[in-house]
Amino acid sequence: MSKLESIDVQTGTHLEFVDITGAVKDFVGCSGVNDGICLVYTPHTTAGITINENADPAVTADMSAFLKKKYPHESYFTHMEGNTPSHIMSSLFSASETLIIQNGRLLLGRWQGIYFCEFDGPRNRKVYLKVVSG
Amino acid sequence: MSKLESIDVQTGTHLEFVDITGAVKDFVGCSGVNDGICLVYTPHTTAGITINENADPAVTADMSAFLKKKYPHESYFTHMEGNTPSHIMSSLFSASETLIIQNGRLLLGRWQGIYFCEFDGPRNRKVYLKVVSG
Amino acid sequence: MSKLESIDVQTGTHLEFVDITGAVKDFVGCSGVNDGICLVYTPHTTAGITINENADPAVTADMSAFLKKKYPHESYFTHMEGNTPSHIMSSLFSASETLIIQNGRLLLGRWQGIYFCEFDGPRNRKVYLKVVSG
Repeated sequence: MSKLESIDVQTGTHLEFVDITGAVKDFVGCSGVNDGICLVYTPHTTAGITINENADPAVTADMSAFLKKKYPHESYFTHMEGNTPSHIMSSLFSASETLIIQNGRLLLGRWQGIYFCEFDGPRNRKVYLKVVSG
Repeated sequence: MSKLESIDVQTGTHLEFVDITGAVKDFVGCSGVNDGICLVYTPHTTAGITINENADPAVTADMSAFLKKKYPHESYFTHMEGNTPSHIMSSLFSASETLIIQNGRLLLGRWQGIYFCEFDGPRNRKVYLKVVSG
Repeated sequence: MSKLESIDVQTGTHLEFVDITGAVKDFVGCSGVNDGICLVYTPHTTAGITINENADPAVTADMSAFLKKKYPHESYFTHMEGNTPSHIMSSLFSASETLIIQNGRLLLGRWQGIYFCEFDGPRNRKVYLKVVSG
């Protein structure tokens, strides 16, 4: 009946969308919260959380291809680590998403899945899951 | 005194910002929540929720024109349905916005309105409204 | 032990990221909330809130340079005030971020800072901080 948990995500490539819907559903089911909200939050500054289609894997594959093409390294970037594009994507996608819990379950749309967005992998990453009842 | 409701939005064009501020205000007023937060959430993967100016309609008209121009179909997209740009905009705008409730009312800025963002219309859409007191 | 506060931010340039992490931490510490969430919300339509690295100032400097270059005024914009790019950035970054409170403190990643994003400065701005326990 924990209200806060962390899950580990191991990414395999530089830019990747990892479906964590199952883990979030499991956590909400075990939390004992019947009605409320669930915050899915990543503590990294070159990663993000997003909600998008998880029926056709081509959707996230297209998003990855788009991001690689449209957010390249630019000659005027000064951040020594060289991963400014990863930081920009992190801010544009944002560190979290908030979802609704109804009757003890996540209220997701038919095609919606929850993704951890890796923008600077491969790395070992964390995602925090937090429920608030109400 | 419901804590969760859904509203229907009928969109008329492919890319459109529909002002739903009035409906969110009405829901918060009827919810009986005096202080807390309100989550405005759409369960679709080719739509989003955003907050922006609702005084001059040119603002959202300019945003629509900008999105059409900057997020076209790309030759390397593989999603068979052909609406990858709509999915990308959905992730960039995000599926929800969270607002503050103070003294039984939404705490909005003077120029802020809440918009349902249609990125693949026209369609019949849903928006969920959820309050949490605290 | 207030659950809602506003802070003032004075920006100095047109496009700027102001680190407000300390103010949010102070508010959470004084709120008396041990476990819950904290919503950081700006009521302006040409500004935003984001979370990103605050160790190397080059990260936000690069983001500012990128935004200026990629979101210029376009000839087809019709909003008379002439600040459509600022409104677009506001929607892309979003008006708020939600954070986790654990044991009376913000649960931030090692490199994460919270930023007020000025997209149309210099101006006097406001940020609302709201805690919900749970």
